[in-house]
Amino acid sequence: MKIALAQINPTIGDFKHNTEKMMAYIERAKGLSCDLVVFSELVISGYPPRDLLEREDFVTANLETLRKLVDSVKGIGVICGFVDRNPRREGKPLHNSVVLFEEGKVLHQAHKRLLPAYDVFDETRYFEPGTEYTAFFYKGCTIGLSICEDICNDKDIFSRRLYSVDPLARMVENGADLIINIAASPFHAGKREFKRDMLGNISKKYKVTLVYVNQVGGNDGVLFDGISMAFDSRGIMTAQASDFEEEIIVFDTERESRDIRPISETDTDSILKALVIGTRDYVQKCGFSKVAVGLSGGVDSALTASIAVRAVGKENVTGVFMPSQYTSRESFEDTLKLAGNLGINLIQVPITGIFKKFLQELSPVFEGIATEVTGQNIQARIRGVILMAISNKLGCLLLSTGNKSELSVGYCTLYGDMSGGLAVISDVPKTMVYRLAHLVNKEKEIIPRRSIEKPPSAELKPGQFDQDDLPPYEILDPILKAYIEDNKGFREIVAMGFDRSTVKEVIRRVDRNEYKRRQAPPGLKVTTKSFGCGRRYPIAQRFLAVLQ
Amino acid sequence: MKIALAQINPTIGDFKHNTEKMMAYIERAKGLSCDLVVFSELVISGYPPRDLLEREDFVTANLETLRKLVDSVKGIGVICGFVDRNPRREGKPLHNSVVLFEEGKVLHQAHKRLLPAYDVFDETRYFEPGTEYTAFFYKGCTIGLSICEDICNDKDIFSRRLYSVDPLARMVENGADLIINIAASPFHAGKREFKRDMLGNISKKYKVTLVYVNQVGGNDGVLFDGISMAFDSRGIMTAQASDFEEEIIVFDTERESRDIRPISETDTDSILKALVIGTRDYVQKCGFSKVAVGLSGGVDSALTASIAVRAVGKENVTGVFMPSQYTSRESFEDTLKLAGNLGINLIQVPITGIFKKFLQELSPVFEGIATEVTGQNIQARIRGVILMAISNKLGCLLLSTGNKSELSVGYCTLYGDMSGGLAVISDVPKTMVYRLAHLVNKEKEIIPRRSIEKPPSAELKPGQFDQDDLPPYEILDPILKAYIEDNKGFREIVAMGFDRSTVKEVIRRVDRNEYKRRQAPPGLKVTTKSFGCGRRYPIAQRFLAVLQ
Repeated sequence: MKIALAQINPTIGDFKHNTEKMMAYIERAKGLSCDLVVFSELVISGYPPRDLLEREDFVTANLETLRKLVDSVKGIGVICGFVDRNPRREGKPLHNSVVLFEEGKVLHQAHKRLLPAYDVFDETRYFEPGTEYTAFFYKGCTIGLSICEDICNDKDIFSRRLYSVDPLARMVENGADLIINIAASPFHAGKREFKRDMLGNISKKYKVTLVYVNQVGGNDGVLFDGISMAFDSRGIMTAQASDFEEEIIVFDTERESRDIRPISETDTDSILKALVIGTRDYVQKCGFSKVAVGLSGGVDSALTASIAVRAVGKENVTGVFMPSQYTSRESFEDTLKLAGNLGINLIQVPITGIFKKFLQELSPVFEGIATEVTGQNIQARIRGVILMAISNKLGCLLLSTGNKSELSVGYCTLYGDMSGGLAVISDVPKTMVYRLAHLVNKEKEIIPRRSIEKPPSAELKPGQFDQDDLPPYEILDPILKAYIEDNKGFREIVAMGFDRSTVKEVIRRVDRNEYKRRQAPPGLKVTTKSFGCGRRYPIAQRFLAVLQ
Repeated sequence: MKIALAQINPTIGDFKHNTEKMMAYIERAKGLSCDLVVFSELVISGYPPRDLLEREDFVTANLETLRKLVDSVKGIGVICGFVDRNPRREGKPLHNSVVLFEEGKVLHQAHKRLLPAYDVFDETRYFEPGTEYTAFFYKGCTIGLSICEDICNDKDIFSRRLYSVDPLARMVENGADLIINIAASPFHAGKREFKRDMLGNISKKYKVTLVYVNQVGGNDGVLFDGISMAFDSRGIMTAQASDFEEEIIVFDTERESRDIRPISETDTDSILKALVIGTRDYVQKCGFSKVAVGLSGGVDSALTASIAVRAVGKENVTGVFMPSQYTSRESFEDTLKLAGNLGINLIQVPITGIFKKFLQELSPVFEGIATEVTGQNIQARIRGVILMAISNKLGCLLLSTGNKSELSVGYCTLYGDMSGGLAVISDVPKTMVYRLAHLVNKEKEIIPRRSIEKPPSAELKPGQFDQDDLPPYEILDPILKAYIEDNKGFREIVAMGFDRSTVKEVIRRVDRNEYKRRQAPPGLKVTTKSFGCGRRYPIAQRFLAVLQ
């Protein structure tokens, strides 16, 4: 059987757009003489639809769309994901389902059995799990149909198994020799290697052919890298699609073949690609074509602008430089150079006069705050007002430029530099910001070298440097990773070799600034734990008292 | 058996504070010659701890706290909720548990069987469900221990049952004659009547005595009203605690008794109480004592300030009036009057000069924007900057003043009037704002009558009124309720009798403004569906196309 693996980029709720795209890929699969074309999880609606699933009209529209698709496709079998209703009067009202149809008939259907409820996932909120593990005969193969998490409970791979049943093992017991898995598996750096090894090991262990089709693109902050794969029954990868690109690849169960497309080589490469695709998709799926970025002369805003140019094109990016009395000449020069290198439009709006006016009006209330934190925040917020005015007036989406290290410890101003529709690098630690900046400059200098090499500064008071307020980023970033990504506690982090008082201060700052992050724009997830819907912390809590 | 129902207000993660409070209530129960004292769900840690549950150190601290409590209490039995580890290597790592201990020994333990995953709940994210339904003999009763949702799956009450098992029925089959339910059941207006009827019906149907103990207080935006209750085996309520107050009430299984404390009479009464308690708890649990409120002369900010005064005391509330060239004399007079009536400090900071300066600096970029939406947003954001400066400098938490109707349709400015640490009335529809304002004025005029009676206006351009941009609130609010709380679609809402184009425009505005709400401060939940963690909508989605 010749199988097309079609990884496409659906838009949440845009049933017309999604099925038109599917139809185009079905035609391509037919042109490649395929017997079967496989699409990803919930491809009809896009993944994740979140609480749209609680709307009857949404579920109905998804079912009607599938019905039309079943009726209109001829000459090829199609496997795809959709939302089904649970016909029973007990349990959650929906199923996360997969269907195989051909010539107007549904030949087989299965419901997702293992429903993830960790990190960004909320599937137990909507779906009742499937409880069947049948395999069925189709065009010479005995197929076991599964959805994403269904194949992620192997006892030889997971030391802590989240579920008591292994659907894959059950389908193999029932005779499956071809496992098809449709997925919407969110990206984070380092995950693809784990996934490839897991899929290879499973297919080898059970001596089954395995086809895995993953969604591509960004939906809000959650990104999908595609890299659909096929493995023969010896566990050898015989087909692999590109990362972060819509694509169709072909795999023949009858013939030895090899179609391995290149993917990003390093984590840094894949993160850059993820950020570009994530930015493009967020901007365009929200109905915008243009973006604005505040430029400070520093590396964070320079990297954000470089990503923006790759995402939506230089003609659609406006840089905004907003100098104050504390802005250095170097920052101005580097901003001009960056804008020139990127070929983007640059607007300049000084904030000194506005800042003075604020200080004047506030002086009856309190005096001498220019360089205090209050005064620094006012400067950052004036910039926020200007950026939002430009965004309003020019109809462009504002990208915020803060990195994960800053956001973690609250070294940023709510309604100031945190303003924007999308926080492009808010899941990128500062040490990775530097690696990405070097990668952007790989072929020629885009980001001025001085922006990368100078000591980072917010330039909100004279002689201010990040390192006066924060530990060096090479120390801060691993502490943050241990605390935020790995959920380690104070004592464990100290045991890793870090200074007690540094760890205590970092933890306190992370906890104390939860309120800022709650009001941050959505950010693009590239690590195992990003702020946003995958990390759900209370604000009014006192657990930090346990540091003593 | 004489049972004390102890409803207390724990702080998330403050194990020391929570157990000190428990110890005080245990002593009170002993003073009342009780045999047993019952506390609410997860009372040791406070509910909901959310992703703190993913931290080993948090779970350990909670277990150590329970251990100390078990060791130290003498002379009375104690039932309370805590987080336990799941000893099995499969399934979620934790249990939501209830324990009965006495004289240093744990006599019985049960795990919550039904784990809610709807609205604000995320229990399947952390907990493995219990699968046992035993009843056990203790001091003359055969007790069935249950936790909150465990008793919410009766087939005669719920037409759509979310779970396939009814733990209550199973415990009764196993001989239970006393059902004890410990809960953390979030408040919304109208829920208490449903809950009281359900509990009464269950106890009558199974001829069991029923004791229900609910948490009190606010944790972030989720509020708990207490109203712990006891029912005899005829389904008659024999004890009821107050709403929104820490309290202990006593119920004797052996003696006819009646101890019914008064609770708020109307929905409006209970919402006002909820908002006051919610504000107080958020402010104080976040470590603040003082708050600031921007006052406009309108009813929303007047109501918010009135709530603030009840929550934290007039000496801790600062009002801020920020007039522009579009501010009316009436608004100024009404603000002075309100501040006088409330007895709060009033700061005045004009924005006209700052606004002019912004327009001047932005004029090279674009001209003549003073009264356009861009210019209106700049005014709102200048006020945001001033309010945050005052919050920074004076160390007070800023309360935002927007209502649910505005927030739903985006009739508000992100980083402007939406700024703050807590959005006090963001789940209160405008029509309810008026009812609450009248309630505040019940005994004497606090909110100036003109603030309530004048047509609402943002005063961001000459002659601007809400009703120029929005349908009348008596039309808008029911459409919003149908769409947001009841998940009705376009056609269903039109079928309720509303104008097609009005409904279409309202739905479009709700959808289009998801990005603003994502960056809103936490709000106090008082309806069945508030914005925030209980409503999880994608931003980049195109389902609105289905309105045609």
